[in-house]
Amino acid sequence: MLKTISLAQDQINLSLIDFYQQVRQRSEKICQPLAIEDYVIQTMADVSPPKWHLAHTTWFFETFLLIPYLNRYQVFHPQFGYLFNSYYEAVGKRHPRPQRGLLSRPTVEKVYQYRAYVDQAMAELINQLEKDQQISSLIILGLHHEQQHQELLLTDIKHILATNPLRPVYQTQNSTSSAELINFEEKWLDYPGGIYSIGYQGEGFSFDNESPRHQTLLQDYYFATRLVTNEEYLEFIEADGYSNPEYWLSEGWSTVQAERWQAPLYWEKIDGAWWIMTLGGMQPLQKDEPVCHVSFYEADAYARFCGKRLPTEAEWEIATAQVPIRGNFLETEKLHPTAALGMTRPDQMFGDVWEWTQSAYLPYPGYQPEAGAIGEYNGKFMCNQMVLRGGSCVTPISHIRPTYRNFFPPSARWQFTGIRLVK
Amino acid sequence: MLKTISLAQDQINLSLIDFYQQVRQRSEKICQPLAIEDYVIQTMADVSPPKWHLAHTTWFFETFLLIPYLNRYQVFHPQFGYLFNSYYEAVGKRHPRPQRGLLSRPTVEKVYQYRAYVDQAMAELINQLEKDQQISSLIILGLHHEQQHQELLLTDIKHILATNPLRPVYQTQNSTSSAELINFEEKWLDYPGGIYSIGYQGEGFSFDNESPRHQTLLQDYYFATRLVTNEEYLEFIEADGYSNPEYWLSEGWSTVQAERWQAPLYWEKIDGAWWIMTLGGMQPLQKDEPVCHVSFYEADAYARFCGKRLPTEAEWEIATAQVPIRGNFLETEKLHPTAALGMTRPDQMFGDVWEWTQSAYLPYPGYQPEAGAIGEYNGKFMCNQMVLRGGSCVTPISHIRPTYRNFFPPSARWQFTGIRLVK
Amino acid sequence: MLKTISLAQDQINLSLIDFYQQVRQRSEKICQPLAIEDYVIQTMADVSPPKWHLAHTTWFFETFLLIPYLNRYQVFHPQFGYLFNSYYEAVGKRHPRPQRGLLSRPTVEKVYQYRAYVDQAMAELINQLEKDQQISSLIILGLHHEQQHQELLLTDIKHILATNPLRPVYQTQNSTSSAELINFEEKWLDYPGGIYSIGYQGEGFSFDNESPRHQTLLQDYYFATRLVTNEEYLEFIEADGYSNPEYWLSEGWSTVQAERWQAPLYWEKIDGAWWIMTLGGMQPLQKDEPVCHVSFYEADAYARFCGKRLPTEAEWEIATAQVPIRGNFLETEKLHPTAALGMTRPDQMFGDVWEWTQSAYLPYPGYQPEAGAIGEYNGKFMCNQMVLRGGSCVTPISHIRPTYRNFFPPSARWQFTGIRLVK
Amino acid sequence: MLKTISLAQDQINLSLIDFYQQVRQRSEKICQPLAIEDYVIQTMADVSPPKWHLAHTTWFFETFLLIPYLNRYQVFHPQFGYLFNSYYEAVGKRHPRPQRGLLSRPTVEKVYQYRAYVDQAMAELINQLEKDQQISSLIILGLHHEQQHQELLLTDIKHILATNPLRPVYQTQNSTSSAELINFEEKWLDYPGGIYSIGYQGEGFSFDNESPRHQTLLQDYYFATRLVTNEEYLEFIEADGYSNPEYWLSEGWSTVQAERWQAPLYWEKIDGAWWIMTLGGMQPLQKDEPVCHVSFYEADAYARFCGKRLPTEAEWEIATAQVPIRGNFLETEKLHPTAALGMTRPDQMFGDVWEWTQSAYLPYPGYQPEAGAIGEYNGKFMCNQMVLRGGSCVTPISHIRPTYRNFFPPSARWQFTGIRLVK
Repeated sequence: MLKTISLAQDQINLSLIDFYQQVRQRSEKICQPLAIEDYVIQTMADVSPPKWHLAHTTWFFETFLLIPYLNRYQVFHPQFGYLFNSYYEAVGKRHPRPQRGLLSRPTVEKVYQYRAYVDQAMAELINQLEKDQQISSLIILGLHHEQQHQELLLTDIKHILATNPLRPVYQTQNSTSSAELINFEEKWLDYPGGIYSIGYQGEGFSFDNESPRHQTLLQDYYFATRLVTNEEYLEFIEADGYSNPEYWLSEGWSTVQAERWQAPLYWEKIDGAWWIMTLGGMQPLQKDEPVCHVSFYEADAYARFCGKRLPTEAEWEIATAQVPIRGNFLETEKLHPTAALGMTRPDQMFGDVWEWTQSAYLPYPGYQPEAGAIGEYNGKFMCNQMVLRGGSCVTPISHIRPTYRNFFPPSARWQFTGIRLVK
Repeated sequence: MLKTISLAQDQINLSLIDFYQQVRQRSEKICQPLAIEDYVIQTMADVSPPKWHLAHTTWFFETFLLIPYLNRYQVFHPQFGYLFNSYYEAVGKRHPRPQRGLLSRPTVEKVYQYRAYVDQAMAELINQLEKDQQISSLIILGLHHEQQHQELLLTDIKHILATNPLRPVYQTQNSTSSAELINFEEKWLDYPGGIYSIGYQGEGFSFDNESPRHQTLLQDYYFATRLVTNEEYLEFIEADGYSNPEYWLSEGWSTVQAERWQAPLYWEKIDGAWWIMTLGGMQPLQKDEPVCHVSFYEADAYARFCGKRLPTEAEWEIATAQVPIRGNFLETEKLHPTAALGMTRPDQMFGDVWEWTQSAYLPYPGYQPEAGAIGEYNGKFMCNQMVLRGGSCVTPISHIRPTYRNFFPPSARWQFTGIRLVK
Repeated sequence: MLKTISLAQDQINLSLIDFYQQVRQRSEKICQPLAIEDYVIQTMADVSPPKWHLAHTTWFFETFLLIPYLNRYQVFHPQFGYLFNSYYEAVGKRHPRPQRGLLSRPTVEKVYQYRAYVDQAMAELINQLEKDQQISSLIILGLHHEQQHQELLLTDIKHILATNPLRPVYQTQNSTSSAELINFEEKWLDYPGGIYSIGYQGEGFSFDNESPRHQTLLQDYYFATRLVTNEEYLEFIEADGYSNPEYWLSEGWSTVQAERWQAPLYWEKIDGAWWIMTLGGMQPLQKDEPVCHVSFYEADAYARFCGKRLPTEAEWEIATAQVPIRGNFLETEKLHPTAALGMTRPDQMFGDVWEWTQSAYLPYPGYQPEAGAIGEYNGKFMCNQMVLRGGSCVTPISHIRPTYRNFFPPSARWQFTGIRLVK
Repeated sequence: MLKTISLAQDQINLSLIDFYQQVRQRSEKICQPLAIEDYVIQTMADVSPPKWHLAHTTWFFETFLLIPYLNRYQVFHPQFGYLFNSYYEAVGKRHPRPQRGLLSRPTVEKVYQYRAYVDQAMAELINQLEKDQQISSLIILGLHHEQQHQELLLTDIKHILATNPLRPVYQTQNSTSSAELINFEEKWLDYPGGIYSIGYQGEGFSFDNESPRHQTLLQDYYFATRLVTNEEYLEFIEADGYSNPEYWLSEGWSTVQAERWQAPLYWEKIDGAWWIMTLGGMQPLQKDEPVCHVSFYEADAYARFCGKRLPTEAEWEIATAQVPIRGNFLETEKLHPTAALGMTRPDQMFGDVWEWTQSAYLPYPGYQPEAGAIGEYNGKFMCNQMVLRGGSCVTPISHIRPTYRNFFPPSARWQFTGIRLVK
């Protein structure tokens, strides 16, 4: 049976240096199965080469911690600031994103040297700290930043391998025993309307976009106990859902036609049977698994096809209020969503697949971004994106919270994204 | 002094046939100053040729009223359904939007014949009606649809003329006497938080996206008594606001750079002085007029520059609750925003310029689109658009309501769009 | 029977003023069947709006004749130089070619006023001339320039009307009696190799690219007595010629796939039968007519399919040396190619369709372009274009010569272009 | 002093197996300085990843030799035919060219295994041959094909490294002693007009596009004794040649503006001084070296600026008739053009830089491509390309002939391309 991970086992009482090392090592562990060649390429503009992720997360520590706070720190290379800045306008010019795959140098080996160099300096900095709250906070931000890139590393590696006609395997996948695949029947949990509070409040780490905690007004709603499965989504496909504009938002329908979508990303029909590309290579479609790699447009169209809708992010957060954080996260190393087991109610709120909401990604009332370059982290993306909640099978468990707001444009589908319905 | 129009003078006790004729004649009156050549071209994909607007609004009546409800009605031309359907997927295939300017035929004369033919049949249908509520509602919907296109006609005509290096004049503009241009000082009205109801409820006409009326929770806010002026916006330009990424959403900044925006649309610096293109031709910039033809990105960046923000649509609707609908609308025939006069508090909520809100265009809780093709009217655009409120100087006064939700993508700026701040 | 036009009837002893008026009136006569709306639009970047052609040819006289040579001449409008310059870099900036269809103004009426104004001034200038050879030459160049635009007017009008789903008719076409359509059998005329002279030499008008007359070395060749017919070309289509890369140049094959070509331009298969769009509207395909509206890629692929090839321009010119200039030109007002009648050998060398050669458009040995802006007329296009010879059914007969070199990119097919083979 | 290589030293009496091994090893030697990462990327559509070149040249032997002629040959990998076919339509579908940089697999190591596997099988096939003329010819074709890719490998590696802001060094360059850089004065050699024969005839290897040998007629011409130097080309730059449309072909001028060309490719102005990127890294511009990395447009514009012109390919071939093949080729391992030394007259006809001609790439009279897929080698590119002659400093010396016709589109400049004038 799938080992699920719960937060308490992993994060309690981790000292800062331990957390630092654990996160940094995890990134490198993720890349261990790669050939040098896999580190270098960029298969679409959204994807970054794995070596870029490894260097960029390192640049974050160099730029926001070592240069300002570590005495006599020498930058590793004068041009890495230009090459590995992602989008921080306040920090200076940067190499254009769509050209990240045009750089063979620095080599992968050099990038690992960069990481080791920065890790050593960071150990020194952490050692000197003595409870400087501001610097500690920045380090923890850097580690959560790297955890986000761990998820991106895996989604990008998947895209890199899936783009290749040879369909290479990242890791041999733990076989999914059929015993696991007995999905329980979808039910509806009833939540009463009223004034609720959402958003983060507390001592621990959170991103600025989760604040401030504030009141919101909900109407009564019914929340599905489990995620939409491949089997259910197949009904939509087989009912010609991809050919019928009535289910689709206008932009969604344009996208379906322009991109010739016929099914979720990574689905392939071979000799009449559906297969999907996974990090374990090509696998026959499992009907009980949650549908994955759908865009917001597809999630929304599917909901309309069912006469239901997607939850708002407030509805999702309230429904999850008492649910413990455990499930199929990065740490299970399964790297693929699994069928619901019916052990908790509602099930699979955390892990497996990110859940599209019907909420546009907007600032909470009273939202204030951080000052300076760090303030560019979240706030400036609050336009033309939709909120997703709950984490996925490639999210580190210590990275997620009930208040965590992920966001992607409605057309994105290379993330591990799925569907939960409300009515 | 500028004659302002208030709703009561125009719409009370209009019978259906009178309203029909009044609206239909207004569209033709708008086109009266045009040369035949002006009717034909499409200066960007968002713009439609004026003759297309005239035909499309007519097609709406033919398709949704005459074909289903008028006995023995013969369509005017078998291919007009293909040529003049805008986006109704349920009604069949249609001519591609970006190619509307590639059609020299039907001629303008033929389009006017089409209008006369349909108007005659509509008169017959209305005459037969005898209080059929459903058909009356559809006719009223068609008339409000045409009013929307009256606004689009004027914004598109403005774009067509402004694209031309000869900068032709649509109508000689009533001169703006300097007496009018004494703008009063911006003040802040205080609104207490709490639970409010927004959305339409009542007997009159409204669009489906204004419903259902529902409760919403607001926090305390301060609402500016007047619109941001050209003079105030110039400070942003002169402070290099268009060169400084810190004020901009990420997508906004990309747009500024890709489009090389330096000022609002239709602004031009000639020999060191700012001029703007108006429907009355090129005019020197008037500092006291409300800034117009800004995108959401610019409105949002300007607000951040001021340390303030844009209102949510709920905040806007509550602030407007007691404000009478009067102001500088299409019927004043000024066709240009005017300086605030300080006669009411808050001022210029209606007319002059559409006011960007910070609300993404999303369904209200419990929203249900109409069934069938008419249901495509609003709902399918609820993605990647922002809400605007209040109408403009080219909106027919009988078309607007406090609950009216206009929407455009955040990059659009060829509409008469301006800025009001909250804090 | 089709009236063919021979040069002698038209051009002998025309005085300069008569030639001027004849040419200028012809342009306006060509536009007589147009609706105002047809004058304005641009259906692809290669096409110019008819009113642009009318104004641009007028601008040529204003710029190169009236401004430098007529005392006290006042330009008609200060911005017309910007709007109606086509590509003369030496004359100054110009309105971008792909945006010619975005200009509703000047109106068509204004353009005709511009023509009348310039015609009057030109009459004055011609009257003053008294055998100034240089100015006369420039006027004649301007008239030949306008004749080129007469051909373009008709090809562009055809494209404008054919792009419209209503398929409007430009003029009711003289019916093609079946008697005319008896095509004679293709034969091969034998030309011996050796040193020949090609290029223009003499007293009359010619373009600079036809000079200098020079020697060239030919090998023996066989020249087809008539043009390839629709019937013959259909064999290529039915043998899946458009699906078989072996016949195509690499760039041709890319174009076929990118543009999804299945047949020549303006061919349409309706209920299993081939129709073609003509200036007389949609007509059933006539098998004996010469194939028309093919690109160089198609002409070349067809030749390869037949195991033959296209002629070089020298081979063409030598084969035509003794052939009188008569045939189906603009003046027959048929505006459509006709079947060969077998009256001369080789037949239809002049008129009907331009004949693609396998010669790239390059300077003749010793070629010198004119000095100044006029030198931009021909020389700067000597790259990536192929030579065509012989004129078409929309070429004025007085415009053509055996040495005349027309040129278009190998992908162009909106001109009246056909195929003659050699082996 | 620069060691120049002459053909006799290298190619005489090489047995087929020796020639095979020598060529195949050379390709691998070229790649020796690369990091694994350099093998993978594609910095523009024209460039292919080095590992693709290594695999594609191997695929050529597998496809055209081993599969048809070696008994019981097993293909190395069933999908390599799809991945490494370049453009042979007759051989089947292929991976899209612009996506060659999206493939991290097969790894570089696997590609080398592929080479070794095919080399072993080829040794077996060559061993069995016993003078089968047809198969030998195909092998020799395959080797010349690989030599072409050796040149492309180096031009593509140069582009890959030059695109990188780190400007990595491929090999430390032999310093260019100033003694070498004394360029002799340009002189003009006089060639009389008349009938000459050009094209290949003989026993050795040649490409089909060099045949048949045929007569051509030349006029008198003067041929420059040496190549245009950087110093001379700088005069064009400093005279604002890149801002003055009068020198440029129309398409050239559009390209200059669209691409914002200011100088040849790889030139960079740093603190007021010109530098160029070489395979030895960034180097200060040497004034006496021949100008390199110019497009046909630039070569043609420069010639017009000088009041001269480029040679035709026939003029070039006749001028080279008696010149021995020696000079600065790949085998000198300098990989950069050098200044003329004045040892021969005309100088540097072979090696250093390819010389643009004013001849479009067209079939010779009587040209017949080979049958089958091999016939796609040359003939299908005979459109929209210009001929270049003489080889460059990255061409293998045994690959070049006086009759050799290289060809590229007029905008290409990532090859080692320079300028020689005639008048």
